[in-house]
Amino acid sequence: MNRVYNFSAGPSILPESVLAKAAEEMLNYNGTGMSVMEMSHRSKAYTSIIENAESLLRKLMKIDDSYSILFVQGGASTQFSMIPMNLFSKYKKADFINTGNWSKKAISEAKLFGAANVAASSEDSNFTYIPEEYNLSQEVDYVHITSNNTLEGTRFVTFPDTGNVPLVADMSSEIMSREMDVNKFGLIYAGAQKNLGPAGLTIVIVKTDLIGKHLENTPTMLRYETHAKEKSLYNTPPCYSIYVAGLVFKWLDDMGGVKTIEKINNEKAAILYNFLDESKMFLNKVNRKDRSLMNVPFTAPTDELNEKFIKEAEQAGLCTLRGHRLIGGMRASIYNAMPVEGVIKLVDFMKKFELENK
Amino acid sequence: MNRVYNFSAGPSILPESVLAKAAEEMLNYNGTGMSVMEMSHRSKAYTSIIENAESLLRKLMKIDDSYSILFVQGGASTQFSMIPMNLFSKYKKADFINTGNWSKKAISEAKLFGAANVAASSEDSNFTYIPEEYNLSQEVDYVHITSNNTLEGTRFVTFPDTGNVPLVADMSSEIMSREMDVNKFGLIYAGAQKNLGPAGLTIVIVKTDLIGKHLENTPTMLRYETHAKEKSLYNTPPCYSIYVAGLVFKWLDDMGGVKTIEKINNEKAAILYNFLDESKMFLNKVNRKDRSLMNVPFTAPTDELNEKFIKEAEQAGLCTLRGHRLIGGMRASIYNAMPVEGVIKLVDFMKKFELENK
Repeated sequence: MNRVYNFSAGPSILPESVLAKAAEEMLNYNGTGMSVMEMSHRSKAYTSIIENAESLLRKLMKIDDSYSILFVQGGASTQFSMIPMNLFSKYKKADFINTGNWSKKAISEAKLFGAANVAASSEDSNFTYIPEEYNLSQEVDYVHITSNNTLEGTRFVTFPDTGNVPLVADMSSEIMSREMDVNKFGLIYAGAQKNLGPAGLTIVIVKTDLIGKHLENTPTMLRYETHAKEKSLYNTPPCYSIYVAGLVFKWLDDMGGVKTIEKINNEKAAILYNFLDESKMFLNKVNRKDRSLMNVPFTAPTDELNEKFIKEAEQAGLCTLRGHRLIGGMRASIYNAMPVEGVIKLVDFMKKFELENK
Repeated sequence: MNRVYNFSAGPSILPESVLAKAAEEMLNYNGTGMSVMEMSHRSKAYTSIIENAESLLRKLMKIDDSYSILFVQGGASTQFSMIPMNLFSKYKKADFINTGNWSKKAISEAKLFGAANVAASSEDSNFTYIPEEYNLSQEVDYVHITSNNTLEGTRFVTFPDTGNVPLVADMSSEIMSREMDVNKFGLIYAGAQKNLGPAGLTIVIVKTDLIGKHLENTPTMLRYETHAKEKSLYNTPPCYSIYVAGLVFKWLDDMGGVKTIEKINNEKAAILYNFLDESKMFLNKVNRKDRSLMNVPFTAPTDELNEKFIKEAEQAGLCTLRGHRLIGGMRASIYNAMPVEGVIKLVDFMKKFELENK
């Protein structure tokens, strides 16, 4: 069994113990004589799986009963339309803080259903920082941020104060990586395939009083109301992805929860950024105080060296380090499931590469 | 390892060899050092998985290049809105043959986007038959059928001739169970969780020339064009479900394909229906010539006997036989992955139960 260190931005590394448990239970879950994949989503065994996943999610993120938790499909890209379709209840307008590629997609999708005001943007400097001044309006249905920018490697360290206007955050690439006060948000959404589990599951945490005000002719499956009323069982949910996410939640809970993983994530990020700051070869262009703890883009001085690095790293068992096609260079995604040793191995390899290629 | 016979209507039984393969490859797929769940959907290894799944699907169902194959999310329930949003290009109207609960949902969803004409219905007799006379219009964008009715246990043995009007079929509960001429259809869709793999994946087989004519303001993720252009990789697809579906396709191909499984399915259905026709206790109310090969609803004379049957069958390892809550009684779903022995065991148990309870 020769496992690699996988720095993929998503789908991405999962805890080995979670995969081992899933493999062990594949043909016979908990004495039921069947796989979780084969179970009716309305069976007793599956009901306990989905309820347990929700309750661990609530515990880990300290989510109270004023929020509904929805297990849906379609990724953050589907939320880009579901959010305006469900929340454009009064002004049919939202403020957006544009911090990168995913923000831009959220903005352009919202425009299909109403108005999208860009209240701040860091596009002027290729999204290498998080804006601190916003031109927020009071006459909008919500303010939207991308709390961690997977491609650009930035994050909101603190969140904007939007007063009575609901704050909506795409947390796909950092959910459960650090402690935060969910009560500051009207809605948090995340594709599971980075910090939570396999692709095909999207988690929406939404203040229940925001539900039920969707635009006319919103497809039934795109209404939050549909999924909230039926506890994510209006139709067959992505059962197996929810099961694996539940195993990931249990892994995190057993380890001490978000507080513990935040410490480890800070440690991992420090190892990598400290090296980058000392390196004469590798460069991370992000404004220091806005650096992501999850996604670390960096470059060598030439395209040739980037290619050489990616290839040799792969041979050394440090995989999926190629940067996003819009950004180039390299990117190390060091999500919750990436152990400290993986980051140490990466830095050791970078040091060696720098020595060999100077 | 004590596996049961699982008669669930969906999610449902999968071939044991497929589950064993998935378990074996869980921590290290094909020497990559990672799980399929952990792989970038744009990696070389995953590209080969998704391309292989598509090519086996084309082979098994004899689908030529004039059709696009889309691997999407959201289930048949999302297709109920995607189909009108994408195909209401001229008349904003479709004809529906109403054969049950799922047809009704498709009809009510289409009405959000245009007109739905019920061209025929068997609602007058609780959907126990498939109508033979249709009041089809020429001035519609498509004709919609539910080719196999999971709750009611009926199927279209032959399909309506709709001339130049595209025929659209929900085949969720019978796709790949029998040979059929895909060229008769403009669009075929199916949730994977019955005959193809785990929940969370929906397969759409659509004549490419029907794509690109969606209604204005259709969400990007609900446009067939989006997924066709990007070969189902516009955003992260339900990667693991596609991988398992690929394993199921390979299992079916290795066994001889749809022709072979159709013979086995006919054999299984005959065993069960022949017994039902002789039984003095158990009754299947469906018009004989319209009986489904996949879903067989039946009842005992009293609710008490139904409950007793379900409970004792479960204890004998014959699981998930409770009928749908809208129909009551029992239902045996005998999809492709249900071995002949499972049906024989069920009939033996029914005989025994009938003797013990007469």
